[in-house]
Amino acid sequence: MDQPSTLQLAGGLISGKYVAPGGEALTRRTNQIKALLSSRRLPEKGWDERSIRMLIDDLAAMDANNFLGQVGLGEREGRLACPLVINRHYGFAHGIGRSGSLTADQPKAAGSSLVCRLANLLVLDALVTAGLKSTTSALLLPMATGLALQQVFLALRDIRGPEAEYVVWPRVDQKTCFKCITSAGLKPLVVNLQCGSRHNRAGQDNHDDDDDNDELRVTPAGIEAAIERAGGASRVLCVFTTTSCFAPRAPDPVDKIARLCGTLGVPHVINNAYGVQSRQLCRAIDRSWTVGRVDAVVQSTDKNFMVPVGGAIVCSGGKGYVGQVDVVHKVSERFPGRASGSNHLDILMTLLWMGKQGWIERLEKREKMMGYLTQKLTLCAERLGERILKTPSNPISLGMTLASLVRPEEGEGGRDKGRRRGGDPVTMLGSMLFRRNVSGTRVVGRGGTINLGAECVFENYGAHIDERGIPYLTAAAALGLEEEEVDVFVERLEKTFRKLTRFERPAVPDS
Amino acid sequence: MDQPSTLQLAGGLISGKYVAPGGEALTRRTNQIKALLSSRRLPEKGWDERSIRMLIDDLAAMDANNFLGQVGLGEREGRLACPLVINRHYGFAHGIGRSGSLTADQPKAAGSSLVCRLANLLVLDALVTAGLKSTTSALLLPMATGLALQQVFLALRDIRGPEAEYVVWPRVDQKTCFKCITSAGLKPLVVNLQCGSRHNRAGQDNHDDDDDNDELRVTPAGIEAAIERAGGASRVLCVFTTTSCFAPRAPDPVDKIARLCGTLGVPHVINNAYGVQSRQLCRAIDRSWTVGRVDAVVQSTDKNFMVPVGGAIVCSGGKGYVGQVDVVHKVSERFPGRASGSNHLDILMTLLWMGKQGWIERLEKREKMMGYLTQKLTLCAERLGERILKTPSNPISLGMTLASLVRPEEGEGGRDKGRRRGGDPVTMLGSMLFRRNVSGTRVVGRGGTINLGAECVFENYGAHIDERGIPYLTAAAALGLEEEEVDVFVERLEKTFRKLTRFERPAVPDS
Amino acid sequence: MDQPSTLQLAGGLISGKYVAPGGEALTRRTNQIKALLSSRRLPEKGWDERSIRMLIDDLAAMDANNFLGQVGLGEREGRLACPLVINRHYGFAHGIGRSGSLTADQPKAAGSSLVCRLANLLVLDALVTAGLKSTTSALLLPMATGLALQQVFLALRDIRGPEAEYVVWPRVDQKTCFKCITSAGLKPLVVNLQCGSRHNRAGQDNHDDDDDNDELRVTPAGIEAAIERAGGASRVLCVFTTTSCFAPRAPDPVDKIARLCGTLGVPHVINNAYGVQSRQLCRAIDRSWTVGRVDAVVQSTDKNFMVPVGGAIVCSGGKGYVGQVDVVHKVSERFPGRASGSNHLDILMTLLWMGKQGWIERLEKREKMMGYLTQKLTLCAERLGERILKTPSNPISLGMTLASLVRPEEGEGGRDKGRRRGGDPVTMLGSMLFRRNVSGTRVVGRGGTINLGAECVFENYGAHIDERGIPYLTAAAALGLEEEEVDVFVERLEKTFRKLTRFERPAVPDS
Amino acid sequence: MDQPSTLQLAGGLISGKYVAPGGEALTRRTNQIKALLSSRRLPEKGWDERSIRMLIDDLAAMDANNFLGQVGLGEREGRLACPLVINRHYGFAHGIGRSGSLTADQPKAAGSSLVCRLANLLVLDALVTAGLKSTTSALLLPMATGLALQQVFLALRDIRGPEAEYVVWPRVDQKTCFKCITSAGLKPLVVNLQCGSRHNRAGQDNHDDDDDNDELRVTPAGIEAAIERAGGASRVLCVFTTTSCFAPRAPDPVDKIARLCGTLGVPHVINNAYGVQSRQLCRAIDRSWTVGRVDAVVQSTDKNFMVPVGGAIVCSGGKGYVGQVDVVHKVSERFPGRASGSNHLDILMTLLWMGKQGWIERLEKREKMMGYLTQKLTLCAERLGERILKTPSNPISLGMTLASLVRPEEGEGGRDKGRRRGGDPVTMLGSMLFRRNVSGTRVVGRGGTINLGAECVFENYGAHIDERGIPYLTAAAALGLEEEEVDVFVERLEKTFRKLTRFERPAVPDS
Repeated sequence: MDQPSTLQLAGGLISGKYVAPGGEALTRRTNQIKALLSSRRLPEKGWDERSIRMLIDDLAAMDANNFLGQVGLGEREGRLACPLVINRHYGFAHGIGRSGSLTADQPKAAGSSLVCRLANLLVLDALVTAGLKSTTSALLLPMATGLALQQVFLALRDIRGPEAEYVVWPRVDQKTCFKCITSAGLKPLVVNLQCGSRHNRAGQDNHDDDDDNDELRVTPAGIEAAIERAGGASRVLCVFTTTSCFAPRAPDPVDKIARLCGTLGVPHVINNAYGVQSRQLCRAIDRSWTVGRVDAVVQSTDKNFMVPVGGAIVCSGGKGYVGQVDVVHKVSERFPGRASGSNHLDILMTLLWMGKQGWIERLEKREKMMGYLTQKLTLCAERLGERILKTPSNPISLGMTLASLVRPEEGEGGRDKGRRRGGDPVTMLGSMLFRRNVSGTRVVGRGGTINLGAECVFENYGAHIDERGIPYLTAAAALGLEEEEVDVFVERLEKTFRKLTRFERPAVPDS
Repeated sequence: MDQPSTLQLAGGLISGKYVAPGGEALTRRTNQIKALLSSRRLPEKGWDERSIRMLIDDLAAMDANNFLGQVGLGEREGRLACPLVINRHYGFAHGIGRSGSLTADQPKAAGSSLVCRLANLLVLDALVTAGLKSTTSALLLPMATGLALQQVFLALRDIRGPEAEYVVWPRVDQKTCFKCITSAGLKPLVVNLQCGSRHNRAGQDNHDDDDDNDELRVTPAGIEAAIERAGGASRVLCVFTTTSCFAPRAPDPVDKIARLCGTLGVPHVINNAYGVQSRQLCRAIDRSWTVGRVDAVVQSTDKNFMVPVGGAIVCSGGKGYVGQVDVVHKVSERFPGRASGSNHLDILMTLLWMGKQGWIERLEKREKMMGYLTQKLTLCAERLGERILKTPSNPISLGMTLASLVRPEEGEGGRDKGRRRGGDPVTMLGSMLFRRNVSGTRVVGRGGTINLGAECVFENYGAHIDERGIPYLTAAAALGLEEEEVDVFVERLEKTFRKLTRFERPAVPDS
Repeated sequence: MDQPSTLQLAGGLISGKYVAPGGEALTRRTNQIKALLSSRRLPEKGWDERSIRMLIDDLAAMDANNFLGQVGLGEREGRLACPLVINRHYGFAHGIGRSGSLTADQPKAAGSSLVCRLANLLVLDALVTAGLKSTTSALLLPMATGLALQQVFLALRDIRGPEAEYVVWPRVDQKTCFKCITSAGLKPLVVNLQCGSRHNRAGQDNHDDDDDNDELRVTPAGIEAAIERAGGASRVLCVFTTTSCFAPRAPDPVDKIARLCGTLGVPHVINNAYGVQSRQLCRAIDRSWTVGRVDAVVQSTDKNFMVPVGGAIVCSGGKGYVGQVDVVHKVSERFPGRASGSNHLDILMTLLWMGKQGWIERLEKREKMMGYLTQKLTLCAERLGERILKTPSNPISLGMTLASLVRPEEGEGGRDKGRRRGGDPVTMLGSMLFRRNVSGTRVVGRGGTINLGAECVFENYGAHIDERGIPYLTAAAALGLEEEEVDVFVERLEKTFRKLTRFERPAVPDS
Repeated sequence: MDQPSTLQLAGGLISGKYVAPGGEALTRRTNQIKALLSSRRLPEKGWDERSIRMLIDDLAAMDANNFLGQVGLGEREGRLACPLVINRHYGFAHGIGRSGSLTADQPKAAGSSLVCRLANLLVLDALVTAGLKSTTSALLLPMATGLALQQVFLALRDIRGPEAEYVVWPRVDQKTCFKCITSAGLKPLVVNLQCGSRHNRAGQDNHDDDDDNDELRVTPAGIEAAIERAGGASRVLCVFTTTSCFAPRAPDPVDKIARLCGTLGVPHVINNAYGVQSRQLCRAIDRSWTVGRVDAVVQSTDKNFMVPVGGAIVCSGGKGYVGQVDVVHKVSERFPGRASGSNHLDILMTLLWMGKQGWIERLEKREKMMGYLTQKLTLCAERLGERILKTPSNPISLGMTLASLVRPEEGEGGRDKGRRRGGDPVTMLGSMLFRRNVSGTRVVGRGGTINLGAECVFENYGAHIDERGIPYLTAAAALGLEEEEVDVFVERLEKTFRKLTRFERPAVPDS
């Protein structure tokens, strides 16, 4: 309505001098849209809902299924039946992509194509802002991290040929990380982790030198040995490292491994699932691009950008490995057909809503909250006679020992005996916390043995390492965590913990 | 987004040749808006939700409380607290009107002012389309019919002076019609109705000449007598007639009374509550404007335009009475302050949604449904041994006798005795129907005596007449009634009726 | 879905142990609803959008027009045509009230009736919380303050009889305040204000004793004199005082006037338009209920509760005047017919959203912001060589002199001469601020003479007093004002002011 | 709110007898939910928006991220940032699935898990209703058909081993169909189609025996030969047939091929992309399950269920092949991690909205529209001197020759010469129709040669066959097509066609 001719008509209905400021206000909003289309970056300041809706509504009106007077004689005309579905998608129906590529424009759907393009551009800017400074290409995929990794592996398979059937993979005890390898028809070659010297020691102690910690780590030497085990570089599809993970596992030293991969000519894929939110992890990846080989970095959108589950970003950066095919581009090109545009819409809306400032503020707040959580949980551990696992290189997750919950006889007798009086207190803690409205903590006690197929059997599954240690509870400071949540968590944890120990150790007085 | 510069920027992100049709599609929508602002009439074809939202969102963005970067230092800055409230009002907060007049433009709220203006313009066009062809001014008031009538009476009071304290009013048994007079501080002078010769006769009969019917009517002579009773024209604020009403009451002969009022110099206000939907009632009012005096016609928006309760339209038309003050204008000018804009928004959206064609279709369908209801109910009455009241001049409501539900002894003994076995079947019928999901029917049995104040006592209240007749049930064919509803109604009515008579008359076999 | 039988069925589809916490979460929400229905007060903590929608959706489903399988044979069946209208009203269509009373329950609309009742109950609690502690009854009216006052006057007219045709009214220069009297057919009897000793003195000065200020005030003696002028108490419908108003007008001393009204037996109506947000004004009214006579207090909902324009609250409190008719009840009872329920819905949603805590926080923040605004504006005035008007008893609005903008020759020549070089700088300031996105400030220069009818002519209209003083600008700290807004305002004001003085007084250097 | 205790509390606020019917109305809605959870089938009659929202809102409230007072200490807590995103997903954030399986329940997200389960159940019922009567399992995948097919192939690869690297595939000229094979790392083995005897003959003719038609078909013998070419059954991953396709290609004879696959022990995957909407195609698949081997049938959700692009359904049925692994189950189990729940929500809402009746009505209407389109287009072709391709076995798409648009010299000279005067009229027709708001038609002229990789080169791409025939235009009668659309289409087609021939053949007079 801010076109001069329209405003003039409006000025014929009500006083023109009142219309003018309204027209200017509209123009300020359409200028936001222009600035977005022209800068192709995150707006400095987040948009309000009104401006976002104005953009999205206009884009939706540019898809053929929303044209006035359109008739459709094809097999896919974007007809939607249910009004609730129409509303929640703003009338978007055509998804994104085309047979040629996942990022190809759609002739019938200029609006959807623009949503796709803008979402990709803003995601790129957001990654750079978060610390992945040398990112050169980023592809938003409408699938969660696991399937995105599978697609990356399939793309690498095209490049590396059928010989390269092994994925060298430092152990992480999350099934998805394993299944994304096997579901691509590949063979995982597990690299075991080394534990720090303090691992498995209960209670507080005063050793405090740097090497003396609880971390579970992989070494470049371990990777190299695995490549040899596989039969050499030509048999390895890629090394598949992990950054973000649960304490006491440490992020893999991606830069050192990148250097190794560069030297050996082995592709390197990084699972950075929820690592965009950590400055430290971003810095490590950014460094890896410079010093060695990284073919693709994959991250989740829900965990890093506060949108619903269902999206992932594959990105690459730096100058790239000499002679390297761009895996990001490859993934897009070989994608078979169209895909949902719903995740792109979520990301676009969310990044416009945050703006660059809001994005940075959230990232900085998370770093601050990690400190706050550590501090509060340390005090709590002290009060409970436990200690915080020393995991200095994990910037998101931390662990607290649960030594007091271990039953004396279990040191020998194991699980079954423990089922006296209502179950093992360690495992009970997790479910009790959940029933007290605390979600996301993980209790790691004595994990079982699990066979995940592909000749891979894991002992003590859940702990990332075969060797059994002291049970512990993990908690993470993820994007969006609030101070108040930490306070409430620590309070509920302490209360629940004491309740469990009271029953276990009747001698200890409890408030 | 359909500005060339914006489309060009979009064409830099995706293929320009795909952007072009999208831009054209947007232009078709902005052209709808231009056409509306320029024609100031109902669009020929109804708009889809998308175009309506596009208009409303743009208008809302033109109110100062929605400006980007606005700061507000006044006492009324349109700040809204609850997101649900913001959303449901599209961010509109300033209402309509100003201290000067209810239709005055607001400097801070160009968008709200345009909503107000457009709603008034479309309402005017809709009235003309419905048959009030000579309407010259129409004012949408954000208050229901009763309060709107009160405001009309107060405006007339300004014009007529304190002497004119009587409102001459043919009886209608709806309290609101009475209270709008007394709440303005005026005195109702009730004119009793005459009943047709068939009134009060149960069962079917074959008399069929025109005069022989069940209608309750007022005569111009009755009005004239009342004016005399009041002490002459100078003591009468106005004659207050009614068009739409429940059968067997007939619409007042507004044209004849208009002629009388013109002759006597007495103002004339018509309560056309839900009469816009009837071609016949519109025609009668339109004729009245030509042949006599009508100062204001008041109608409800919810009943005529399928919006929520809360609005009314005051209109006037024809060449107007010589020397007459425009009451419509007067009502707007004397309105003290601002008012809600929510009703205007509803009306604007609804009329854009219907368009002229949709509005005409709905009106025509209603006429058809009146025929369908009459036909179906007539057959039903025959099956039940009852008859339809003969009320040829009531175009919306009709009545069916309930003679079989009257208990023999009640002919004499009255109500109280009837309370044997679960209450009076006549009154039970109404509530039974409601519990069977039939709303809107009214059962008129033996009404009580009621004192509504202002020295007015009504016998047999609910029946519009003191004399007791045969009980009956009314049903109306109002805008939006569906054929399926009539079918279901008749089925439920028959079933319920038979259930009641089965208990009453055990001899009669029932299916 | 939190009914055991439903949860059990859900537990047949997915794991029952996952269903359980979900069911409990639902129960926590339904318990919020129960607590509301049972306590009939503001919830301590505000509800989230989800709980509010859950309540409102359930209530809407309880209206007959939303029943599954309902058929409607009446003239008003709540049929809505446009989906956008349905959605924004949650399907509510029946409005509130009935012919009997504005607060009467509707048989066809239990949901709407509950919205009406709950809104009234929460409003009452909110008033008490705000400081109107002795409020005994409060009626939410779906009309803005002006029309609500008119209805109060009409109700009083019933009680007082036609003799009592005068409304004794300390001057406030807002047309609505005047029109609500005349539009009820009554005669305003204007009481002129007294100005403080500092009034009209430009620049800063150091007098600081209490009596020495810029306030415009009415005295009880002035009221008493007016009642005499009217011909005594019997000729006076009521005294009509004002609390919230623009500086330098002071709130009327409602407690002293209440005492006078009690003594003289004259009704007393208080226009507390946007006074609920001020602790001080609430306290004064609350005291008035104890010490004297107040028949009704009227306040706006948009200004006090952050909802769109369109509602007002009439309340009364204390033990009440002996023999007094409850005007609040009277207004409801005499209301002719139904009314929109949209304002009630807004209020209900907003008060649930705020909760008691949120309401109190907002009120306290406003008090704080009044201090902040005063402080910032005082510093600004100093920098500009102006001063803040000394108006200690006005808790919401304050004024800053604009002495430097007065052209030398205007001291004598007046307005017309001033129109050289682009208009009077004083009046230009207001529009320039508006174009710079500052709304709500009022510039009061040399007001004209205005005849508002009813034999009332006002000199210097806009300034509340005939005598011309130094021009000034008012600004208010109303509910919802943010610190950032004050900062931006002061910055824009200073810049604009300097721009104007630079042109006027070229000698003064400007940054 | 329909719990007795809540209703009783409501009855304390307003008249209990008005509350009762409202409570019953609520119960009717909660009973709909119960019936759904208990029957696990499509409701007989579609739900209104209110009931759907009520269910979805309740389900969303059962996810931990929407619990009141929840604190989240994990890495994925379902925190959403942008209100617009929250609203459009009803607060759902956790997606569906878990590391174990795509259909595994989520402990933190009972609501999401129920959406997933219900969507799958209703989809199964909808398939059965549409004619896939023997469907035994159906899996809704949050990915479009192409990627879903890729996942099916990967699952089959697990079962068949690395030897089986060929996919025997009757040619369909849609890139996605090809890419879903190669992107899984497999090799397509293309089976060429046979053309009917009429193929390539322009104008109308009177041959009408059954064998004499324009269809492009594959024969079981062709499939068998391809399997031999591959090196026998053990080298073949599967035969990959297609049902729904553009005329003049005929649906593959899936039942005969199923029989062959059963005999040879070769898996069989059917691409039934938009075939659910055709009774005939469903019947053929249903028959295939009985007579032979079909391992998986894949269909799109957007094309068959009127939801946005982004979902597919993999189903299997019949007694299944002896010893066969359930591929549907396998696809779900091997899925790596979580996935978006947005498609499931769309499907759930849409199927509830349609209900069984609405679903059947839409299917039947489509069959009717296919007849209507054929009839209208046949008449149009006659008027234009063209003919409808005789493709009796294609139930969705049909073709019309464009012989008159072929330039004389092009019979020999080919494309390039034809670029005189503004381009080839055949290709221009398509884009002209699109600019006239007709989408979905495909114009097939002289296709080029294309190399899609994997050693596959296709001549005359777009026409499904190397041999060049007469150009034609295809149109389809897909779900949701309206009679009015067909009328408008035929009108626009005829006008555009005549415009093109007028320029080409100036001698022909044009109206």
